[in-house]
Amino acid sequence: MKVMKKLLCMNIAGDGETSYANNSGLQKVMMSKSLHVLDETLKDIIGDHVGFPKCFKMMDMGCSSGPNALLVMSGIINTIEDLYTEKNINELPEFEVFLNDLPDNDFNNLFKLLSHENGNCFVYGLPGSFYGRLLPKKSLHFAYSSYSIHWLSQVPEGLEDNNRQNIYMATESPPEVYKAYAKQYERDFSTFLKLRGEEIVPGGRMVLTFNGRSVEDPSSKDDLAIFTLLAKTLVDMVAEGLVKMDDLYSFNIPIYSPCTREVEAAILSEGSFTLDRLEVFRVCWDASDYTDDDDQQDPSIFGKQRSGKFVADCVRAITEPMLASHFGSTIMDLLFGKYAKKIVEHLSVENSSYFSIVVSLSRR
Amino acid sequence: MKVMKKLLCMNIAGDGETSYANNSGLQKVMMSKSLHVLDETLKDIIGDHVGFPKCFKMMDMGCSSGPNALLVMSGIINTIEDLYTEKNINELPEFEVFLNDLPDNDFNNLFKLLSHENGNCFVYGLPGSFYGRLLPKKSLHFAYSSYSIHWLSQVPEGLEDNNRQNIYMATESPPEVYKAYAKQYERDFSTFLKLRGEEIVPGGRMVLTFNGRSVEDPSSKDDLAIFTLLAKTLVDMVAEGLVKMDDLYSFNIPIYSPCTREVEAAILSEGSFTLDRLEVFRVCWDASDYTDDDDQQDPSIFGKQRSGKFVADCVRAITEPMLASHFGSTIMDLLFGKYAKKIVEHLSVENSSYFSIVVSLSRR
Repeated sequence: MKVMKKLLCMNIAGDGETSYANNSGLQKVMMSKSLHVLDETLKDIIGDHVGFPKCFKMMDMGCSSGPNALLVMSGIINTIEDLYTEKNINELPEFEVFLNDLPDNDFNNLFKLLSHENGNCFVYGLPGSFYGRLLPKKSLHFAYSSYSIHWLSQVPEGLEDNNRQNIYMATESPPEVYKAYAKQYERDFSTFLKLRGEEIVPGGRMVLTFNGRSVEDPSSKDDLAIFTLLAKTLVDMVAEGLVKMDDLYSFNIPIYSPCTREVEAAILSEGSFTLDRLEVFRVCWDASDYTDDDDQQDPSIFGKQRSGKFVADCVRAITEPMLASHFGSTIMDLLFGKYAKKIVEHLSVENSSYFSIVVSLSRR
Repeated sequence: MKVMKKLLCMNIAGDGETSYANNSGLQKVMMSKSLHVLDETLKDIIGDHVGFPKCFKMMDMGCSSGPNALLVMSGIINTIEDLYTEKNINELPEFEVFLNDLPDNDFNNLFKLLSHENGNCFVYGLPGSFYGRLLPKKSLHFAYSSYSIHWLSQVPEGLEDNNRQNIYMATESPPEVYKAYAKQYERDFSTFLKLRGEEIVPGGRMVLTFNGRSVEDPSSKDDLAIFTLLAKTLVDMVAEGLVKMDDLYSFNIPIYSPCTREVEAAILSEGSFTLDRLEVFRVCWDASDYTDDDDQQDPSIFGKQRSGKFVADCVRAITEPMLASHFGSTIMDLLFGKYAKKIVEHLSVENSSYFSIVVSLSRR
């Protein structure tokens, strides 16, 4: 998929690529791993399944406030325009792009990155949870989400302090914690599919990428060890008197990494969509396209320190609001400093990776 | 028109009404003066002209970041739902509400005011200038704008320092300044009508309220004396050495208050719309529904001081960014303090008012 940055303000796109490489190499690598699924889905949708609409409508769920969503949406637009041209449709379509995230997302920043000369593309901010209806009935041709729908609508009910010092579905969590998380996931993903099923036109598609679990039994392998290390850091801080034991015991992250069987079962059981394709892939925690001359002299030392900070920053970006509201914002710098060190130690003995699932779905 | 605050977060709606009364009484009064035109336009649109669409699409151009746009859009939704019910249409429509303003508008704040339970209403932020295309072809049923389209796309070209110490089309401006402003208005309003004509479905409507001029000859009456007082304040500050003469001579506000003949001529000449209705009304500079017991004892003293501050704050809210970028932000407090005093003096000898025009247009 070629990306011509149609929607992205060109001067920002320039700056963005630099800061991208510095800060968002991980997302770039993760996104690139599912681009072929996206491309092939788009090739299939135009013509046979939704015809050649005069206005093609698409949505990114969990767009965040940076350039990533605009880059992906631009790529989709370019691909679809090429498909119209290849199939000799004289008039290119107009595009409506709905950028969705929670209402507290920084849409102001997102809009600053937006090119003012979009021609045939109309871009809107759509504030709201994707566990609620976002668009009118049968109004959408294509829905996309990259690393957002593993977030649950809430912390599973009935956990109380069963999960003790664990902060998500960890290998050491008791069975009732697994059950509570799995139940919440089933309910949430089923709701998500039902709602998108109402919004997407028959023949329309959806491509979703999210964190997954590589094994059926969550006690057998820690695919989100990144959070286990965060929990261990918090345990250390309890021992040091910096965090209250009760606060740690009552904290659980509303995230779920399903195994492929759970994903397939939920899609089949809900029934609005057929599963056209499911792939899995791994990306190293510290995957990045960043290069730094200083590091190249001794990547084994400088590289590890930087990796620790890099991985910690990635996790901080997505977890700080919930951690700060639970434990207080004053300890955040300390927490993530200690966490980065723990990651360095971990990476010195083990090369960990994120396990991801990408699915391509058709509206029946 | 009843307003049930459907789109407005209920707790904010409560707070909002208080702060509204304190700070935005003027807008409330101004909006209320054109509500009957809005109501009658909506009664006419449903059924005969656009049928009973399953999804009714509307846009507010110049929505700003406060609750006003959400209140008006909620009122429109309630009115249309009532019309469907009256006409025995069993299924109420879904609504798409496009909230448009320039990309530097505070959409984050606007989204915070939005109710999370909109049911059949879908609300989007649409960043961009209304002098560019905002929506796909023939996709909109109703467009609305309240006190925004008197803003020109730019300061008219060729003014140089012809306008001397004046900062808009004042009674003392030379004829070439009137010509430059009128030419820019003709071009801008014609562009605006052409673009909305592309977006609005045949039979769709548009209701626009904006500052107008009560006389043909702009030298004969100062309908925006509010800016003349601002210019006089700046002249004083030049004399005091606080503002450079050159800076004042090169500053002009990109605002235009057309007379009714110009509005009618532009609509007729552009040709996309028919003018169904045109009304004019006046609202006092210090119109507000605010009451304060302290003031009632001696409204002639406390009232005037408060009016000066109130009027100055209203003007500051809309002009500060352009004034600060031209004259520097450090003098803003001083400027608006002096300006408020000048308004008090002015109001003690004359009761000034804003002259407004409201038009209702049909897409041919």
